[in-house]
Amino acid sequence: MSLKSKGINAEREIIHMFWQTQEWTACRVAGSGSIKYPAPDIIAANIHRKLAIECKTSKNKYQYLDKKEIHELLEYSKKTNTEPWIAIKFKKTEWKFIQVQNLKKTEKHYVTTKAALKEKGICFEDLLKINSVCETFK
Amino acid sequence: MSLKSKGINAEREIIHMFWQTQEWTACRVAGSGSIKYPAPDIIAANIHRKLAIECKTSKNKYQYLDKKEIHELLEYSKKTNTEPWIAIKFKKTEWKFIQVQNLKKTEKHYVTTKAALKEKGICFEDLLKINSVCETFK
Repeated sequence: MSLKSKGINAEREIIHMFWQTQEWTACRVAGSGSIKYPAPDIIAANIHRKLAIECKTSKNKYQYLDKKEIHELLEYSKKTNTEPWIAIKFKKTEWKFIQVQNLKKTEKHYVTTKAALKEKGICFEDLLKINSVCETFK
Repeated sequence: MSLKSKGINAEREIIHMFWQTQEWTACRVAGSGSIKYPAPDIIAANIHRKLAIECKTSKNKYQYLDKKEIHELLEYSKKTNTEPWIAIKFKKTEWKFIQVQNLKKTEKHYVTTKAALKEKGICFEDLLKINSVCETFK
């Protein structure tokens, strides 16, 4: 399976999780990462909250994220008053959702490790329990 | 050019229009119309408003819309508190934006004509001027 197909499958997995709640919707953004305008991989929304989500799966013990994609996620979120989240799934673990300020910043990337994500990421069920965290990003 | 490519080009045209305003964002939804969950063609948003948009271009004097796609647009909009709009461009005219209640309902479709759209649709600039019309759809 190509890297692109794997990415799309990961995104679809998250989309199903949202729709299964009955209250949430989620959809994939076409061409995210390749179009000229900033856009997240997934837009999830219910009647009260809107989330912009970047998705990553990793076979290693760490996950790097390009500064550009994080900055574009934050730009999109700011312009739309949407909560920015990064969804990461390390092999043999469940999806965790982490905020940008909980990633480590290196010279060229943002990065998190399997251990750091376990500590600072939240599971899907907890993501849904939060009241809007949008205020943080205004 | 295939029908699908024409559809994507029409959607991109609208996306550019939103981004050119500086205040608005817009993105195409992947697989809209073919995925199993309801989703609009385009999600446009600024800091205050969120729009779910179905896009159509027509070479004829009328434009039919499947009941299913309109009902899915309304379902998505209701679940996400988003304004549902239909963007239609008849040949040699500019894009007009129309609300579902201003389409004519037939037994199997919704439909509008070039003349009806001119009367009941609004231009892009006016769409942006409106304060949120979300209340109408709650």
